[in-house]
Amino acid sequence: MLHDQLARDLYTEICRIPLIDPHTHIDPRRATARNLDDILGYHYYTELAHSAGMDKALLAVSDPRERVRAIMYHMAQFDNTTQYMWFVEIVRAFLGFEGERVTLADCTWLWDAAERLMAQPGWEEQVLQRSHLDKIFLTNDFDDSLTGFDTTRYVPCLRTDDVVFHLDKPEVVKRLQKVASFDDVKDLTGLREAIQKLFDHFTQHGAKACAISLPPDFSPRPVSPASMAKDSRAFSQGVFWMLAECCRDFKLPFDLMIGVNRRVYEHGVYQGQDLFDQRTSLIQYAPLFNAFPEVTFCISVLSSGQNQELASYSWIFPNVVTSGHWWYSNIPAYIEQDLRARLQAVPKVKQIGYYSDAYKLEFVLPKFNMYRRILAQILADDFIRPRLATEAQAMELARLLLRDNARRIFNLA
Amino acid sequence: MLHDQLARDLYTEICRIPLIDPHTHIDPRRATARNLDDILGYHYYTELAHSAGMDKALLAVSDPRERVRAIMYHMAQFDNTTQYMWFVEIVRAFLGFEGERVTLADCTWLWDAAERLMAQPGWEEQVLQRSHLDKIFLTNDFDDSLTGFDTTRYVPCLRTDDVVFHLDKPEVVKRLQKVASFDDVKDLTGLREAIQKLFDHFTQHGAKACAISLPPDFSPRPVSPASMAKDSRAFSQGVFWMLAECCRDFKLPFDLMIGVNRRVYEHGVYQGQDLFDQRTSLIQYAPLFNAFPEVTFCISVLSSGQNQELASYSWIFPNVVTSGHWWYSNIPAYIEQDLRARLQAVPKVKQIGYYSDAYKLEFVLPKFNMYRRILAQILADDFIRPRLATEAQAMELARLLLRDNARRIFNLA
Amino acid sequence: MLHDQLARDLYTEICRIPLIDPHTHIDPRRATARNLDDILGYHYYTELAHSAGMDKALLAVSDPRERVRAIMYHMAQFDNTTQYMWFVEIVRAFLGFEGERVTLADCTWLWDAAERLMAQPGWEEQVLQRSHLDKIFLTNDFDDSLTGFDTTRYVPCLRTDDVVFHLDKPEVVKRLQKVASFDDVKDLTGLREAIQKLFDHFTQHGAKACAISLPPDFSPRPVSPASMAKDSRAFSQGVFWMLAECCRDFKLPFDLMIGVNRRVYEHGVYQGQDLFDQRTSLIQYAPLFNAFPEVTFCISVLSSGQNQELASYSWIFPNVVTSGHWWYSNIPAYIEQDLRARLQAVPKVKQIGYYSDAYKLEFVLPKFNMYRRILAQILADDFIRPRLATEAQAMELARLLLRDNARRIFNLA
Repeated sequence: MLHDQLARDLYTEICRIPLIDPHTHIDPRRATARNLDDILGYHYYTELAHSAGMDKALLAVSDPRERVRAIMYHMAQFDNTTQYMWFVEIVRAFLGFEGERVTLADCTWLWDAAERLMAQPGWEEQVLQRSHLDKIFLTNDFDDSLTGFDTTRYVPCLRTDDVVFHLDKPEVVKRLQKVASFDDVKDLTGLREAIQKLFDHFTQHGAKACAISLPPDFSPRPVSPASMAKDSRAFSQGVFWMLAECCRDFKLPFDLMIGVNRRVYEHGVYQGQDLFDQRTSLIQYAPLFNAFPEVTFCISVLSSGQNQELASYSWIFPNVVTSGHWWYSNIPAYIEQDLRARLQAVPKVKQIGYYSDAYKLEFVLPKFNMYRRILAQILADDFIRPRLATEAQAMELARLLLRDNARRIFNLA
Repeated sequence: MLHDQLARDLYTEICRIPLIDPHTHIDPRRATARNLDDILGYHYYTELAHSAGMDKALLAVSDPRERVRAIMYHMAQFDNTTQYMWFVEIVRAFLGFEGERVTLADCTWLWDAAERLMAQPGWEEQVLQRSHLDKIFLTNDFDDSLTGFDTTRYVPCLRTDDVVFHLDKPEVVKRLQKVASFDDVKDLTGLREAIQKLFDHFTQHGAKACAISLPPDFSPRPVSPASMAKDSRAFSQGVFWMLAECCRDFKLPFDLMIGVNRRVYEHGVYQGQDLFDQRTSLIQYAPLFNAFPEVTFCISVLSSGQNQELASYSWIFPNVVTSGHWWYSNIPAYIEQDLRARLQAVPKVKQIGYYSDAYKLEFVLPKFNMYRRILAQILADDFIRPRLATEAQAMELARLLLRDNARRIFNLA
Repeated sequence: MLHDQLARDLYTEICRIPLIDPHTHIDPRRATARNLDDILGYHYYTELAHSAGMDKALLAVSDPRERVRAIMYHMAQFDNTTQYMWFVEIVRAFLGFEGERVTLADCTWLWDAAERLMAQPGWEEQVLQRSHLDKIFLTNDFDDSLTGFDTTRYVPCLRTDDVVFHLDKPEVVKRLQKVASFDDVKDLTGLREAIQKLFDHFTQHGAKACAISLPPDFSPRPVSPASMAKDSRAFSQGVFWMLAECCRDFKLPFDLMIGVNRRVYEHGVYQGQDLFDQRTSLIQYAPLFNAFPEVTFCISVLSSGQNQELASYSWIFPNVVTSGHWWYSNIPAYIEQDLRARLQAVPKVKQIGYYSDAYKLEFVLPKFNMYRRILAQILADDFIRPRLATEAQAMELARLLLRDNARRIFNLA
């Protein structure tokens, strides 16, 4: 869809790079969609449909066809969005749809095509091949089972929101006790040992990163056991610090996804309730970056306004790496600006270009294609045309962003 | 002035859409300028001239020709600005000026042309027709007379800054007592009834919106009568909450113009004293958006840095709508970025594209033209050329932004 | 390196404007580099090399050739950056290098060429001529000697970070006592007189500006002597206010460089430890701008996010001027956005386009070239092609930004 020839040629080349997708929510045992409901059930569609006027009750109907029809009916209200474009690209790439736009009239055809094709044996393999996908990172709860799938393809990643922010919930404590024979939250030595057990277990099962999402006002710092006992904020800070220590000791990069406020829109659809407060700063993380020079921090920020801080902190801190274009910043208008700044200011070996954040494999292709088109255009305009790089050098840059940096940073085979 | 053929063609088409201008400061009884002083007396010109070195005293001279000459003399210092371009477009479109730039040498000619043409019978009708203007929203003080003009053309809008922020001033209380037979500010029940009377009166006279401008640190929340009695900030929050309740009960959209600090430049010219603090967040409005799902909030932000929050909040909150490009964000560099992000992230039916904020009808055309050119270029570059939309679909998008969304949201005939 | 013919032609013309560089760290007695170590010892290279993995210890080696080799070895990790492009432009413009990219293989050749050429008599004159440099502002500590160089070429500028923020350090007090026969920090009358002596001395020796860099949370305001005695923050505010008074009394513009946090990355290389917090606002400076209408404040901001505030404050405050593109904002992605907004919103006579911030004269050319290319492209796209200005008018704008505004504002001969 690029109309500039140089950018189009670069895009074609870039698409040949076997992808490493360093952050997804894929279930490795059910990696692909089984039907159109699995595609349109993605929160990007349910929240946009709801935002455009769809009653939430329609999402609770028992017939998935009816739910899909409701979403597609409301899609006519948001067919301007990037999310709609992803959907069109999915049905064209994977379902053989030949139109340029999708409307409610296509609903039955699409449902049938999806049901037929997605049930084929080897569908997962087909999607992986067409997407040119090599490795996919998972987002694992600490008590997820890590067996029964190929961990060199589906790379485990220890997600730690629960231990940092939800150990005040008895059910979380119980889950932790189950996997880490852990006594009491108040016993900080025990808690530390439990966390170490998690890291040990995860790294032995092929985990290559620890990850967490953090609210805008979170400020990591070392805290005393006494403070941790008294104050829930200090408790979170203390547990977070233990995680950083484990990342250091177990040599795992720590993915920080900074800036999300949970449940802002109280009556929103599932996963469509979170927003942000632009008033946050990486200065909050300076004590962390200083204290753990051996840990690589792969940083995602939620707002484009924070991108300059991210580029600047990565520019001087050896252990700070830019990572992807997250959520509300994952639209071309913001990716373009943010990517240009990173390419101009951050050493090329310190940039993890993109991740899909996908829940189903089918979304990897349209999301990466969006990114690859933008990257191709920037390489053409900012590097090749002004003769700051040859095409070969530009392609090397693309390969770092899409594959080689992730391989090196996450220590992949 | 677009040199891209596709964008130019789109622009021509877009200019045919009959405009709804959903926020102005037009006086319906004297909608057009009577002379050049009414044009150049606009604060954009007086403040730029003053900023470029003009003594404020020159604005107080009794001869309007002298005032105009002083401003045009200083215009040579700011003929790079967007505001200067508006002026050139006005004199070319309405006064028959044929040069491409205006200088002091044109002052007499322009004065004479303006005086002659603007005195013509039917001038207002001419301006409306050339601007292709269908409906114009007003900004009415609560005690404005709403009779004596065609409220289907000049649509009343209840502006409420005074009741929220200035009921500590006896003259405001007196004005309120006059129109709403209201006893005492301390009697909150009486105050609520007075506000209800305003809404009743306004909606019966064709008002289609309630509006307010708010400082960066304002945080709406419900407050108890006891707190309202004690604290002026809480009082404002309480009155604001009453307004939201009335918007709900009277089914009026609530225009929130968020982020202005008043009287920052103490010695500035009239209306040229207000600025902003970029450190504000829509998170402050989450309790409001959650509490009033039935009220449509049309949100304007003062800084482009806040646009991503606005786009994101509109993306998931059904009752949050993006509205225009306000004041310090109303220049092409910021409109382009902000509009692109909105078009990619917000359902197309939830965007009120633009308003002129004009004090005289003659400003509607150049301001909307600026916006329409940017819109045309974005539709060409982001939608049509990458084949994400046909020209017809792009035009439908333009029509929503410039007319149909406003019609639906404000419930116009 | 511009591939657009109109922009290229403008660029060629713009390069003919004799530059005034209104902020550098040049040592007028050793203005040029003596070898490649003086070029690559610039913190932009040491910090990027360190950020990309270079051990800091390599910067401490005694053989400068070894240090240069270490940096060039790591340059392969950041040859995507704008800073790398500056280096390539330096070796092509000044050392006769003919390749389009520099690698470690060029190290010996470059070292030898630099050593030979930079030792030539008249090297400084050559660099000045090729750079078309007319005047260069210095950054002088209050106790710098101001004699022994041509102050009409190398214009002194009183840098005041020390007196505002470091009078708690005995060695700073001693230095001040030496030049201003000053008794005791606690004697505020004496301190004021000492500062007046500095201004007197500096202005008598050709100083044309007072300058300071400020942390994001600094808020100037007048403070009582009693508060100054009690609180180090109030002390800084009080001294800063005295400086503003002296700027007024001695008719010096005051350069404010707003937003830097010092020593954020504690283990960073020399001058590579400072970062910022995007959460700062010019509203903090409103009391200052209001209190000193006679002082011109030339404002630099560290983050692009603050540029809209800067453009807006300059738009209405007569005494606020935009100044350059500082440090972390000094890359094309941010210069483009920020410059476009300024050109559209700020009177053209109130913009100081660019300064190099250079430590060695050789850096003025590549940094200004970067800026001039961006300026040429914006003039072509935003002014000439849409017929908002002729080429002659665009060139006049360029001349104001690069020369005439600085001449007038700093009252240069």
